[in-house]
Amino acid sequence: MNVLIVHAHPEPQSFTNALKDAAVAELTAAGHEVVVSDLYAMNFNPVASAADFGSRGSEDYLNYALEQRHNVKANSLAPDIAAELAKIKAADLVLLSFPLYWFSMPAILKGWIDRVFVSGIVYGGRRIYDQGGLSGKRAMVIATTGGRDHMLSAGGIHGDLTETLKPVLQGTLGYAGMTVLAPFYGYHVPYISQEAREAVLDDFRTQLRDIEKRETLVMPSLANFDAEMKPL
Amino acid sequence: MNVLIVHAHPEPQSFTNALKDAAVAELTAAGHEVVVSDLYAMNFNPVASAADFGSRGSEDYLNYALEQRHNVKANSLAPDIAAELAKIKAADLVLLSFPLYWFSMPAILKGWIDRVFVSGIVYGGRRIYDQGGLSGKRAMVIATTGGRDHMLSAGGIHGDLTETLKPVLQGTLGYAGMTVLAPFYGYHVPYISQEAREAVLDDFRTQLRDIEKRETLVMPSLANFDAEMKPL
Repeated sequence: MNVLIVHAHPEPQSFTNALKDAAVAELTAAGHEVVVSDLYAMNFNPVASAADFGSRGSEDYLNYALEQRHNVKANSLAPDIAAELAKIKAADLVLLSFPLYWFSMPAILKGWIDRVFVSGIVYGGRRIYDQGGLSGKRAMVIATTGGRDHMLSAGGIHGDLTETLKPVLQGTLGYAGMTVLAPFYGYHVPYISQEAREAVLDDFRTQLRDIEKRETLVMPSLANFDAEMKPL
Repeated sequence: MNVLIVHAHPEPQSFTNALKDAAVAELTAAGHEVVVSDLYAMNFNPVASAADFGSRGSEDYLNYALEQRHNVKANSLAPDIAAELAKIKAADLVLLSFPLYWFSMPAILKGWIDRVFVSGIVYGGRRIYDQGGLSGKRAMVIATTGGRDHMLSAGGIHGDLTETLKPVLQGTLGYAGMTVLAPFYGYHVPYISQEAREAVLDDFRTQLRDIEKRETLVMPSLANFDAEMKPL
């Protein structure tokens, strides 16, 4: 299996980074090929703009998605976008590794999605969800939080974290056609003991060994919607 | 009323920009003071990093939230963060104006939140939701989408958009203590006629005139949770 890990944490000594390193070690030991995009280390530019396009379908007006499609056809996407797309195309499994910032991804990772998940390859028209451009690939979120488990569960003060992460789990990974595995969360990590951190790492390694059997999230199916995307 | 509009669209001719301009005109005509942070025009840096801090509580390890608190006390936040914080402090109403990118904000706006909503001022410890640092201020999201209304409603293929936007509506604006007004959505805007766009703009202006009476979203209250944030 080819694995791409997209990692976004500004501190190399972070627990989030330790989880990413554990994933690299465990998946490599299991015989998989692992590639890491460490966005902070790469100084990745997260801002979608006209500079992403080597040619333009319309010079006068920037419709970002239309220019993505034009530049896919013209093979003229910015080199950093093309490089990340090549990694995605080669991957059977994509892991997103990040600390929860405001109940979603840090901006540097959100911008990786904005710029790299291009219309014309990743999705387009009715090519979404089970018809999405990345169908056949799997994806998994690995996120760390300051909050405790009970604060991020159904009935808790913030509500269920997997529900809250719908924009990335369903709206991005599922939308692109990927099979979305149940996320792994490391809770309260800035505040727990070294011993507790080791226990979380051990649990994570054990779960990675069973990744083939990991629970998947249910996504919408185009078969249930008509040509105008209305429910059948 | 002092109004801050934080706007994030790469195309000045966009319909999203027309909505922002309509808000400026309408609110100014009603006697309010309006300030705009146009993040693309400002070339705003959305990447949270050690460079955001003029001094450090810990030189060896970057805990971003702890360094925010340290730099608030030391008055040594990066000048661009301090400038945006000053605008928020002066504002009675904050509008976020953006096109929906992957069912959330474009990265440049997500990074404005990541960097500017600092621990120690905007929130901290139990100072969240109705105890949040921005209590007394109001906030409203103005978002444009490519999708149609029925695709972004309960039972639709993508589900209810206001539910999907929970990370920003509840997890950010509500978490910070702001009273969150019902969002305004412009649907399907890249594909509708000029006449239809004018009708959306007219509807938006009319709704802004009644902003004092606008529906608000229900947020969690700290009064319903114990010292460990467990439900009472």
